[in-house]
Amino acid sequence: MTIGTELLLGHTIDTNAAELGRALGAAGVEIVRRTTVPDRPKAIADAVRAALERTGFVLATGGLGPTKDDMTKKVVADLFGKALYLDEGLLKALEARFKRLGRGPMPAINRNQAEVPEGATVLPNPRGSAPGLWIEDAGRVVILLPGVPSEMRGLLIEEVLPRIVARQAKDGGTRVVRSRTLRTTGVSESALAERVGPLEEALAPLSLAYLPSVEGVDLRLTAWSVVPEEADRLLASGGDRLKKELGDHYYGEEETLLAATVIDILKSKSKTVAVAESCTGGMVGARLTAIPGASAVFVGGVVGYDDNVKREQLGVPSEVLEQHGAVSEESARAMAAGAARVFKTSCAIAVTGVAGPGGGTPEKPVGTVWLAVLVDGNTTAVKRTFPGSREEIRARSAQTALDLLRRRFLPGHPSR
Amino acid sequence: MTIGTELLLGHTIDTNAAELGRALGAAGVEIVRRTTVPDRPKAIADAVRAALERTGFVLATGGLGPTKDDMTKKVVADLFGKALYLDEGLLKALEARFKRLGRGPMPAINRNQAEVPEGATVLPNPRGSAPGLWIEDAGRVVILLPGVPSEMRGLLIEEVLPRIVARQAKDGGTRVVRSRTLRTTGVSESALAERVGPLEEALAPLSLAYLPSVEGVDLRLTAWSVVPEEADRLLASGGDRLKKELGDHYYGEEETLLAATVIDILKSKSKTVAVAESCTGGMVGARLTAIPGASAVFVGGVVGYDDNVKREQLGVPSEVLEQHGAVSEESARAMAAGAARVFKTSCAIAVTGVAGPGGGTPEKPVGTVWLAVLVDGNTTAVKRTFPGSREEIRARSAQTALDLLRRRFLPGHPSR
Repeated sequence: MTIGTELLLGHTIDTNAAELGRALGAAGVEIVRRTTVPDRPKAIADAVRAALERTGFVLATGGLGPTKDDMTKKVVADLFGKALYLDEGLLKALEARFKRLGRGPMPAINRNQAEVPEGATVLPNPRGSAPGLWIEDAGRVVILLPGVPSEMRGLLIEEVLPRIVARQAKDGGTRVVRSRTLRTTGVSESALAERVGPLEEALAPLSLAYLPSVEGVDLRLTAWSVVPEEADRLLASGGDRLKKELGDHYYGEEETLLAATVIDILKSKSKTVAVAESCTGGMVGARLTAIPGASAVFVGGVVGYDDNVKREQLGVPSEVLEQHGAVSEESARAMAAGAARVFKTSCAIAVTGVAGPGGGTPEKPVGTVWLAVLVDGNTTAVKRTFPGSREEIRARSAQTALDLLRRRFLPGHPSR
Repeated sequence: MTIGTELLLGHTIDTNAAELGRALGAAGVEIVRRTTVPDRPKAIADAVRAALERTGFVLATGGLGPTKDDMTKKVVADLFGKALYLDEGLLKALEARFKRLGRGPMPAINRNQAEVPEGATVLPNPRGSAPGLWIEDAGRVVILLPGVPSEMRGLLIEEVLPRIVARQAKDGGTRVVRSRTLRTTGVSESALAERVGPLEEALAPLSLAYLPSVEGVDLRLTAWSVVPEEADRLLASGGDRLKKELGDHYYGEEETLLAATVIDILKSKSKTVAVAESCTGGMVGARLTAIPGASAVFVGGVVGYDDNVKREQLGVPSEVLEQHGAVSEESARAMAAGAARVFKTSCAIAVTGVAGPGGGTPEKPVGTVWLAVLVDGNTTAVKRTFPGSREEIRARSAQTALDLLRRRFLPGHPSR
């Protein structure tokens, strides 16, 4: 549960929730529901009560500060029928903290942060003034953590996860939730589903999720509530089976960027690469250079936004621009050849298109993009019509350009 | 309600929830609870049922895709006791979409996206294959939107908010939560707080939030639960007062990108610009060309990752590279001059630095970046040492480069 009116108003994006999801999943805790409530006693009480009825185990962040709108502790103590008492040790530590940070004597308002529900375990918070609390009674557990992300994270790792893991060990071995993500690009979600769908039953008990974005479709396999060795075994065999089915569309796992895959391939083949970009305006170069060590293969690029640049810097012939236009197969091919020549590289990528919102014509509507890839003097070019906003069209163009270069090095590519 | 196992696992950060909070708050809707559930029929059904009991009005995103893990529509139709029927109009539109995007015939798996619960209003989604649905019966409303953020946003603005506002107007008058955001860059949060702090009381009843990021610090004023005219009046006067205090650090409002501000300035001064990038690898060009209409001022760029490119394409003298290195004031100045000469522009931006993680030295540690800006033959250069990861250093470099060009056109700039 995440507590805070600012979360519901959307002024704060709830990154704590995602972080808790990852950390608890890795420790084998399955989260069955997440609830966000405003800083109102009744809303907090109703939600904690319902959550306790569902699972008996609630982790809540937020509402532990010193100000009036922070009321989580009192509400949860009431739910458990416990009074709050002033913890003298906590009070001394709080006062010492204010002194150490040179903030002068502690304001009276902070005293209530040293109040603790009877029987609760205090989880010390060296990063802030609100400690965490572990409240447990009659088989029901509520853990309260501060909402400040760095404080929440510290308490989670140092205090909460060790207790959860120890508890699971007592219950006889730890069960975990683990995932493996396989990344694809250049193929639609529905085309993937047609390929992969027949496999879904064989993958059980792993669950399979499709996660589409402008970069492509990620496939996530998850093993739920099994011992770690079993999770790893299931994900290894199920993932490998799935990977085989994905074929050439697969380019990496987990957080791997396509640009990193491309750079690894070019390194292994001792190639170098240059880029010639029009509608992407530098995005392909930016993606390649985002990867540490890109300098081993990436030499440079020309952003040819103006046609004169395409002519003068990249040597695209005036006749090509006049006869076919800047967004054409001929231009894309000439741009790639120009980049390879100017930068003396063995590979080159060229992108030219209509990103919109203006500039579309009946023959070349917004979203029309020509992409060319040169490898050792041999150029392939493709046309795509991308949907979406200017930003999406540009992002899809950059991703597709990198993907075309990647595919040139696949064993079965027609250019081989 | 946001639906998706990946949200609970924390693999996806729930930005839709924040966006819905902001949009609905601005339309005067108070969100009393947010719930996230996994892609499991029982979990979805339980949560929707409980939410309907609380308020009678539920907006849910996610789980409308074509694959097996997308089951929201079926579950909600069952809750309302409605059957699903195949909407022939939707089916035709879907098939046309596949054709238009050149993806060949629509896979059979997508047919279920044209299924609609009896009596539901279809909210057309021109950005994707899953339409939104407005299901209303016996005073209970469930709105279903796709989880893809751009599709969710489009449907929210074009279909959902107008219906909600019309409904409120019928109920007689509205109180709203409205915000105004002022954007700054090139100044630290604490320096801003010293400037702005004394103003906070005078700004009441508006609340003031500091939102720092690698792009700069946004300041958000919010008016709470007042009638629309009062909110607008408070935000106009309070915002203008705050803006005055921000001085030269202010560059725009709301979602305005610094690149858009720079392009507006260059347009109004009839200037043109080119870029020469090393460590940013194309990011400055990408940011400028992200703005529709950039072509009026942006001519092109050279990504000079390799020193040979700096020499050959930008004319940086070999002596400069040998004596001072590629990351130096002299190199940055020569790169800017080279870009202006090659692209025949009145303005140029150059960036050269050590983005890390490798490549740092005691004299030039990771994070050292030289930036140069040329306007009408007059070049200014500055050195920065940025903290953070490779990605952060590059993002700060690109933002600072644009900001330096912006500041050159301020009335009080020393170069005037």
